[in-house]
Amino acid sequence: MSFTLSEIASALGFTYFGDGNLRLAGLAEPANAGPSDLALAMDEKYSGAVRETSARAAVLWPGADWETLGLEGAIIATRAAGVMPGLTQMMDQGPDIAPGIHPSAVIDPTATIGAGAAIGPFVVIGPDVHIGENARIGAHVSIARGVVIGVNCLLHAGVRIATDTQIGHNFICQMNTSIGGDGFSFKITDNKSSVEALRENVGAAGQSETSVSGSSQWARVHSLGNVVIDDDVEIGTNTSIDRGTIRATRIGRGTKIDNQVQIGHNCEIGEDCLICGSSALAGSVKMGDRVVLGGQTGVSDNLFIGDDVIAGGRTSIFSNVPAGRAIWGTPAVRMETQMAINKEMRRLPRLAQRIRNLQNTDPDLGK
Amino acid sequence: MSFTLSEIASALGFTYFGDGNLRLAGLAEPANAGPSDLALAMDEKYSGAVRETSARAAVLWPGADWETLGLEGAIIATRAAGVMPGLTQMMDQGPDIAPGIHPSAVIDPTATIGAGAAIGPFVVIGPDVHIGENARIGAHVSIARGVVIGVNCLLHAGVRIATDTQIGHNFICQMNTSIGGDGFSFKITDNKSSVEALRENVGAAGQSETSVSGSSQWARVHSLGNVVIDDDVEIGTNTSIDRGTIRATRIGRGTKIDNQVQIGHNCEIGEDCLICGSSALAGSVKMGDRVVLGGQTGVSDNLFIGDDVIAGGRTSIFSNVPAGRAIWGTPAVRMETQMAINKEMRRLPRLAQRIRNLQNTDPDLGK
Amino acid sequence: MSFTLSEIASALGFTYFGDGNLRLAGLAEPANAGPSDLALAMDEKYSGAVRETSARAAVLWPGADWETLGLEGAIIATRAAGVMPGLTQMMDQGPDIAPGIHPSAVIDPTATIGAGAAIGPFVVIGPDVHIGENARIGAHVSIARGVVIGVNCLLHAGVRIATDTQIGHNFICQMNTSIGGDGFSFKITDNKSSVEALRENVGAAGQSETSVSGSSQWARVHSLGNVVIDDDVEIGTNTSIDRGTIRATRIGRGTKIDNQVQIGHNCEIGEDCLICGSSALAGSVKMGDRVVLGGQTGVSDNLFIGDDVIAGGRTSIFSNVPAGRAIWGTPAVRMETQMAINKEMRRLPRLAQRIRNLQNTDPDLGK
Repeated sequence: MSFTLSEIASALGFTYFGDGNLRLAGLAEPANAGPSDLALAMDEKYSGAVRETSARAAVLWPGADWETLGLEGAIIATRAAGVMPGLTQMMDQGPDIAPGIHPSAVIDPTATIGAGAAIGPFVVIGPDVHIGENARIGAHVSIARGVVIGVNCLLHAGVRIATDTQIGHNFICQMNTSIGGDGFSFKITDNKSSVEALRENVGAAGQSETSVSGSSQWARVHSLGNVVIDDDVEIGTNTSIDRGTIRATRIGRGTKIDNQVQIGHNCEIGEDCLICGSSALAGSVKMGDRVVLGGQTGVSDNLFIGDDVIAGGRTSIFSNVPAGRAIWGTPAVRMETQMAINKEMRRLPRLAQRIRNLQNTDPDLGK
Repeated sequence: MSFTLSEIASALGFTYFGDGNLRLAGLAEPANAGPSDLALAMDEKYSGAVRETSARAAVLWPGADWETLGLEGAIIATRAAGVMPGLTQMMDQGPDIAPGIHPSAVIDPTATIGAGAAIGPFVVIGPDVHIGENARIGAHVSIARGVVIGVNCLLHAGVRIATDTQIGHNFICQMNTSIGGDGFSFKITDNKSSVEALRENVGAAGQSETSVSGSSQWARVHSLGNVVIDDDVEIGTNTSIDRGTIRATRIGRGTKIDNQVQIGHNCEIGEDCLICGSSALAGSVKMGDRVVLGGQTGVSDNLFIGDDVIAGGRTSIFSNVPAGRAIWGTPAVRMETQMAINKEMRRLPRLAQRIRNLQNTDPDLGK
Repeated sequence: MSFTLSEIASALGFTYFGDGNLRLAGLAEPANAGPSDLALAMDEKYSGAVRETSARAAVLWPGADWETLGLEGAIIATRAAGVMPGLTQMMDQGPDIAPGIHPSAVIDPTATIGAGAAIGPFVVIGPDVHIGENARIGAHVSIARGVVIGVNCLLHAGVRIATDTQIGHNFICQMNTSIGGDGFSFKITDNKSSVEALRENVGAAGQSETSVSGSSQWARVHSLGNVVIDDDVEIGTNTSIDRGTIRATRIGRGTKIDNQVQIGHNCEIGEDCLICGSSALAGSVKMGDRVVLGGQTGVSDNLFIGDDVIAGGRTSIFSNVPAGRAIWGTPAVRMETQMAINKEMRRLPRLAQRIRNLQNTDPDLGK
């Protein structure tokens, strides 16, 4: 796949300078670019690298002088934000799943698959599955009974979609992710579990001993609900999304979920959220729209997180968070409070020593 | 699958009220329930929703007046604990693995599989494997040489069970989980590793510089041990359980392990434990019975955790924990200590400022 | 597989004592060892267990008297470091992948595979793949178009290697790991995202409210780069390594990565690093050689970590780390600083109370 400089400029809505017929087949940083690459240099700090690049054309920062930099053609990125999505989409050759349905795939005769499907080797599609047009499904994917998926889905190798999952259009799911596993829900049937007893007692004087010892038997709560995923959702590799107990686990339109993430049963995630890598949501979390959770964030069960919340990396959310709050830390507090805490934490040993000194200086001061 | 109200009441050991012949095919929250659902409303807070539900029957809280609520039949949940396990088990239609062995499965002729097996497409079962009666094995599962599994196992799509793993009865394993990976164990053969040197030196004055730099070569310790899993164990999706080095990694009877969990080589987990999502145990941890680890808990290598320990969410266990202790925090302390620490942490910036003010007020006080 | 005591001693470079013809088929701890096992007792604390072992031969600590201990033969481990790698390698029977290419494997005619390959059932190998000699590839592995792998690779069941990944010699990858997933990179094209706005504003007075609410649309940055892995790398189970955006994600020679790890797009990891279980690196992290990250460590995006850095378990790295530094904590500080902080943290509630008492004792002291 290759494009001329003028085609690229036109697709991005920019004007080009110099030779619009330069044919470009890839994107690269100026230092690594070859003669058929479009070098990406949207910051003046790359000016030295551009001078030495083998590329003949580049995307440059506003105000750059492409001729002085020794290029044959250039695009000036007057609005930088859309450049990377637009350019990388143009140049993406896709995941290379051969057109048509591989003869080794096992597809139930009651399943319906829209026109234009590319389905790889050893794919398993169960009864009563409906998949929309232009599906691309990699090797070893399994899709269980009753699953519905909209148009333009892209399922990479090893994805598992369990029974009755409902998914909207334009769904992208990376390798080895599991959607629709049973919820982690176990009950003690004959008496209180040690966790329940602790929740009632903790805070009372001296209550850090667990109260139940002796036999316990965890009775399984079966997961009868499913997973419902709206349009334009993307999920990373090796992620887990559990089905609900008696209702659906829900992922809202436009939400993106990274690798190694855990979403518990009954969670309801809003629209246009970003959930970064290795985050974990326990069961029944209700989260609003446009929430951003930094990497390795954790959320306890049954919490409410409002719209537009942003959590810094490795935040531990143990209580509800109102809409529009930026939070950080363990347990989560307002972001600027955590920044102040971090500063004082580093000084804590000296602070404590100072207190001991104060007491030594003036022995009448309280102990 | 459907049951009458009287059948359900009888299975749960409750009496029913009203029309025992009402036929019920599902469970739902009152607000979402349809005419053929049994609405679940075991708390009085649902009374409004029950009044407006489309369901004709419900499970209600003790003291509820089913007739005034407009129902045709009801069960009063005088003992609530067992209701969800019992009801969801009755209504669970299972994972929809077709009976019999799919012709695409590759099963070694030396493997033996008990009566009643349902084995999906593209399953691989190696030499000398023994699987008990009523096995249900989803698509794309692989079971390596010498694995033994008891009766009633349920292995979901993409589960990997490596060589010589021994598993008891009633095992449930969710999608894409890996059992029996090699332990993460590497040694420096010619001199001390930087980690070993640091362990000896840290704590000495100024010792936060690492002492070894220059070439290092990690020599692999191969994992000759296996994984041994007792009866009634359940493991979530995309979880990792490593094999032992020269003995077994062991999971005790009745223990339940959630999604995205890491269990290192040589760990020995007791009975009836709950290990919640995204927790990680390093190698050679010995853990007692009925231990509950909250989500994202971490345990360092070679530690001992006693019976009935409960760790709050995201606890970091860096030292041994005696039996019966409730712990929380990083590093783990008694749960009520951590609750007090959390409270003071939030005030730490103000506390530190107060100290600085104290010193300003009385410049003779010690620095 | 079995060896005589003299063969084992010779392979390890030690001398043996007693009956060099004893034939040994396994390794075990003294308490579990049978008559055909070599008992491992490289520390005097095992002397009691050795006296009672059923093993006839053992590897003993320097100074041990094998005859008094009741053995028929022994090796004295004068240099202990290399014993476990050497012995376990000798005794390892490997992952039991049958020689040859299983007839069910789907291998593109343009792929080339070196001599000596063992390739399991349902393996998929795409166009233009090149795999070196002596490859061992377990069931259900998929290797996409253009992947190159060196000699002696060992890929366990369910491994996914995406398009254009380049891998050196002696690569070991455990079950269900995903290499080459798309990076988690999304941009707001029409205005600043709430995260970008927050980064600019946080620290200003009272800035913990997020500034953007209303519609947001995450535009996907496609991942055109690949993953490049050097020689002698090992990766655990259910781990994720994302491809780069317009350059490669790189893993250096000799680096070992554990289970459940997340490596973001564009990361460049040096040589001989150890990345322990459940750690997560966000995008574009540049890490030196011989770095050791303890379990559940997190690294924010775009950071630099120097050579020989050691991070304790669950360290949170939010800023650059100079070479040779031992760090710990959240946020990461020098390891001995964190040890002091941990000590004072536990005393923090009492410390705070003391301050309040000081103020009560002397009401003139500043508030």
